[in-house]
Amino acid sequence: MSALYDCWLRYDTNADSLNKEILAENLASVSVENGDKITASAVEEIERFCKALGLPAPQKVESGATLRLVAGLAAVEHKDGYVIEKSSHGFMVAGESSTGLLYGVFNLLQGLSLGKTPEECCKMDYPRNEIRMINQWDNGDGDIERGYAGRSIFFKDYKFMEDLSRIKDYARILASVGINAISINNVNVHFHETKFITPEYLPMVKRYNDVFNSYGITMYMCVNFAAPIQLGGIDVSDPLDERVRAWWKEAAKTIYEAVPNFGGFLVKADSEGRPGPFTYGRNHADGSNMLAEAVGPYGGLVIWRCFVYNCNQDWRDRKTDRARAAYDHFMPLDGKFADNVILQIKNGPMDFQIREAVSPLLGAMPNTNQILEFEVTQEYTGQQRHLCYLIPLWKEVLDFDTYAKGEGSYVKKMCDGSLHSPKHAGLAAVSNIGDDECWTGSPLAQANLYGYGRLCWNADLTAEEIAKEWVGLTLSTNKAVLDVMLPMMMTSRRTYENYTSPLGVGWMVTPSVHYGPSVDGYEYDRWGTYHFADWKGIGVDRTVATGTGYTSQYAEPNASTYENLDTCPDDLLLFFHHVDYTYKLKSGKTLIQHIYDTHFEGVETVKGYIRDWATLENMIQPDIFALVKERLGIQLENAREWRDIVNTYFYRHTGIPDANGRKIYP
Amino acid sequence: MSALYDCWLRYDTNADSLNKEILAENLASVSVENGDKITASAVEEIERFCKALGLPAPQKVESGATLRLVAGLAAVEHKDGYVIEKSSHGFMVAGESSTGLLYGVFNLLQGLSLGKTPEECCKMDYPRNEIRMINQWDNGDGDIERGYAGRSIFFKDYKFMEDLSRIKDYARILASVGINAISINNVNVHFHETKFITPEYLPMVKRYNDVFNSYGITMYMCVNFAAPIQLGGIDVSDPLDERVRAWWKEAAKTIYEAVPNFGGFLVKADSEGRPGPFTYGRNHADGSNMLAEAVGPYGGLVIWRCFVYNCNQDWRDRKTDRARAAYDHFMPLDGKFADNVILQIKNGPMDFQIREAVSPLLGAMPNTNQILEFEVTQEYTGQQRHLCYLIPLWKEVLDFDTYAKGEGSYVKKMCDGSLHSPKHAGLAAVSNIGDDECWTGSPLAQANLYGYGRLCWNADLTAEEIAKEWVGLTLSTNKAVLDVMLPMMMTSRRTYENYTSPLGVGWMVTPSVHYGPSVDGYEYDRWGTYHFADWKGIGVDRTVATGTGYTSQYAEPNASTYENLDTCPDDLLLFFHHVDYTYKLKSGKTLIQHIYDTHFEGVETVKGYIRDWATLENMIQPDIFALVKERLGIQLENAREWRDIVNTYFYRHTGIPDANGRKIYP
Repeated sequence: MSALYDCWLRYDTNADSLNKEILAENLASVSVENGDKITASAVEEIERFCKALGLPAPQKVESGATLRLVAGLAAVEHKDGYVIEKSSHGFMVAGESSTGLLYGVFNLLQGLSLGKTPEECCKMDYPRNEIRMINQWDNGDGDIERGYAGRSIFFKDYKFMEDLSRIKDYARILASVGINAISINNVNVHFHETKFITPEYLPMVKRYNDVFNSYGITMYMCVNFAAPIQLGGIDVSDPLDERVRAWWKEAAKTIYEAVPNFGGFLVKADSEGRPGPFTYGRNHADGSNMLAEAVGPYGGLVIWRCFVYNCNQDWRDRKTDRARAAYDHFMPLDGKFADNVILQIKNGPMDFQIREAVSPLLGAMPNTNQILEFEVTQEYTGQQRHLCYLIPLWKEVLDFDTYAKGEGSYVKKMCDGSLHSPKHAGLAAVSNIGDDECWTGSPLAQANLYGYGRLCWNADLTAEEIAKEWVGLTLSTNKAVLDVMLPMMMTSRRTYENYTSPLGVGWMVTPSVHYGPSVDGYEYDRWGTYHFADWKGIGVDRTVATGTGYTSQYAEPNASTYENLDTCPDDLLLFFHHVDYTYKLKSGKTLIQHIYDTHFEGVETVKGYIRDWATLENMIQPDIFALVKERLGIQLENAREWRDIVNTYFYRHTGIPDANGRKIYP
Repeated sequence: MSALYDCWLRYDTNADSLNKEILAENLASVSVENGDKITASAVEEIERFCKALGLPAPQKVESGATLRLVAGLAAVEHKDGYVIEKSSHGFMVAGESSTGLLYGVFNLLQGLSLGKTPEECCKMDYPRNEIRMINQWDNGDGDIERGYAGRSIFFKDYKFMEDLSRIKDYARILASVGINAISINNVNVHFHETKFITPEYLPMVKRYNDVFNSYGITMYMCVNFAAPIQLGGIDVSDPLDERVRAWWKEAAKTIYEAVPNFGGFLVKADSEGRPGPFTYGRNHADGSNMLAEAVGPYGGLVIWRCFVYNCNQDWRDRKTDRARAAYDHFMPLDGKFADNVILQIKNGPMDFQIREAVSPLLGAMPNTNQILEFEVTQEYTGQQRHLCYLIPLWKEVLDFDTYAKGEGSYVKKMCDGSLHSPKHAGLAAVSNIGDDECWTGSPLAQANLYGYGRLCWNADLTAEEIAKEWVGLTLSTNKAVLDVMLPMMMTSRRTYENYTSPLGVGWMVTPSVHYGPSVDGYEYDRWGTYHFADWKGIGVDRTVATGTGYTSQYAEPNASTYENLDTCPDDLLLFFHHVDYTYKLKSGKTLIQHIYDTHFEGVETVKGYIRDWATLENMIQPDIFALVKERLGIQLENAREWRDIVNTYFYRHTGIPDANGRKIYP
């Protein structure tokens, strides 16, 4: 289609530097063993690669192919793993399954397009995490909740799209980085979308499902906990009511008859106004187990979100702490969930801020299936107008040692199942795509989707490695390009943090839209999101000693590290403590001076990004260059607004001038 | 219909205490001299009165009637004046015109329903102001901009209503207090509404027009300055472009052919994103005169709003002052406007705040037609959930001495034309009605519409007199009711001010909706609406000496009074000056203590309203009682929120505790 549209599957990004003769030779013919729909997708992708590079289409042969594709090779031990080999018998990609084969083919094609020789592409690899999921927050009307990349590619006017070509391309994009599960509709299931699981819509559900299946992706849907009321005409949706249980069983039967390999349900219940078991005095285990009972006979899963908190809080109340909510609600239920229920837990206890503590619930439930939830869509992180490469943030979470089972109890070990050996484990993340030509608003935001997939595959990959892969595939393998892009991407999260809310305190955004500075925007609101800034200090006291007691939710030594002002890391200082503006950080600066310095610095860094980006003008594809240039311009304008408003806000509270005499508006 | 619906035209409010025999006797028969559609409306109203009170319908006779209605009686000197007389020849209501007669009949019926004897109703009266206008801000889709009383009674789904019965009742309501002009669509004329002046809609425009005409009301419409582009296919709407001038002339011709006595246009141009002459380097005289030229031949008027300011201001810029804008834009154009152009000027220089200075443009243009604009709809004054009787606020404006022509140059003399003898003068106001059963959200908000009409009639009426009339007509003439209502109504504006933004500084509301506290809501926004609160002080320095120089727009001695901190009234202190929280007010209190005291006091007063209202339970109509009770409950809840957020905001800035030790949340 276009460089913007093709993302990291352009294949011709570095066409000039590839040895096309060798490529043509190795891809002259292809054979398939144990073929199915998924292997057909793999062959199609090879053809796409050849076309992009102007190579002849590979001949499909029965034997003697220059490239053998083998699905179901028992020698590949790991689920959906693959091996790429070159021997005297020729070139071979083999998968433990056809999905594994597909992953191998994507990896081979990407390697070749990066300029590797076929020999250099040889490897054995496999996905380390079982569930590697993407959540769409697409509404039936085509609007995407927290979407910053256009309209839905799934729905329009409460109908499913008839033309599935873009959905197929999305499936390719996801499979190319190993994603194997998707939920297609918003977790906030409104009136119309509640009907998506009824016979009226199931033929289209099946068509979508088949597209994803042919790329090794299992499809899920979000359901409305109150569906028995709306659709079933029952007066309750009490999970212990026999009529309700019968209704869900019948609903599941209907779905699975129409869509036999349907994945199951993703559920947001008792959260931000959504219905749930609390209405009937039941708990989350009651609610999720009921659904699990309905889909269980068909191998279905129920993924239940832990984003549950009191969203009608009174700002006057300094004891209630939203950060405590998920742990307080779910910890007591450990071991009470069915085998096919999985709890989905956001990376932080608040809501995807640019910096917050790691959720203490992660890894804390040894007898419960848990998956980690990230947000690829940049809700609080610049809405895809700002460059914010999120992989470093996610790496911090994955590498966080929970001490749940002593030292080395990293979150990533919860995700790969090695911490507690649950029945199911993995990761999920909210998608950042829409019908924009480049899918993600800014081409640079593609890197977050790419990187999320790569971390799902292997959380030990470094943020730099992932950035380097993505830049090579999407922009160029030219060293000059990488020399610009790597520092830009790797510093971008810190930069965004610098000019927005400081030291883990979060929020300070315009309510509802979550974009642009409004320091007191949520300060007196009902959402439990406060910073408590006054003339003397700022921050949320979450200590056991004098605050909300949230620190006690962590295993030791984390609990003490955070509880104690001396050991609490600067980066999370205001998340855990309320301190004076004159408090000296570990960096040696006062808090107020840190705020001023980071805000000035953040803007200067963005100016540097703009200068650096300009140097790439003739080195990368022009459409990508132009679109990113425009986005960086917006980022700079926004960053200035953040800097000035935040600095003025604190100056107006304290009267303390900048030690370096820079301009703070009075 | 119902007590809620009938407003102050219930007639049976005090039915038990009326002498029905005397009423029946005096209204036994009615005759009309010089009858027309308007006198027919008068007769109909008498019939309605009789029906409401269970009296026999008056007989229509040619002569010898117990009640003679005479239109066009030359002996009544003043335009649309009337006389009510009782002599040996019988009872007579005579008008200078049929409209005057209608006003006389309404006055008579209201007097009788208040329990006056026919003799006590005898009087001579006339409207002091020429233009007595209501502006509807109704959109074609049925939404009302800044409407707090339901949907539009004029439009639905971009169509005019086919059933005109409610519009007729609205015309009755307006005529009963002497309103003689109405504009029916929003001053923000959007895409669809631009077409309302085209032949497609003119038959319905005519029907609406005829309804209003039969109550002596002239109908106007708001037009889109860019209509020649949208409707005419011309590439500009430059007022000096001959094609544009020709287009408007043709448009006016079409309108007046369909609706011969159409009033003219009301225009919001170059304001808050609306198109206007600035685009073409023209000024407001160029723009309005062009339209005036088009409607002039038909006797039409062009009413041009002066609400023009830079709405893309930078909060960092402390010199630009929105308050200056109207004066700066329009003063230089004095004498340049056509005879049939009228400038409509808001009462204050900002935007209908609970307290702001009087606009210095009022009365300042001796060679220009000017009318004063009030806002009956309670945009910034509690949105008809809060009781806020606005007549005292409006009286302050009308009684304000501008000194434009020396002492005694009251704004009300600008309105009645006696200050500068312009061709046209008067008042306009934004309506507060919608399709709610009670028209105005809360029955108590009816009093503002009533009072606006009464002030248009005679600005020398006191707020107490008007309140007393309204209470008697709508609730009861029972002294116990009045003893509750008068203090409630008369203190309500001060009460609302007490718990909201202090001492004229304004704003502090949630952006866009303009309801509920958000102290910094507009502080860093583009609207030019700032309070500049910091750790030391608050307020806008509008002095010549050190501020924006706004005070110089007033004639002396007002300019000096406001310029000088010692003479500036406390109530407007923060509108004109930035002062320290420890500054001593003329009341003897510090500023910060004043803020705390008023906010505590405001809430206590509302509690008192609730107690007092409860005492009326069996003295007034139950539907009215119940609805107001509910609204007062909301008001108390909101007032508490205001109190706590504002007090906490200032406590957090200053660290100064309440001198009386009351609870301020930290």
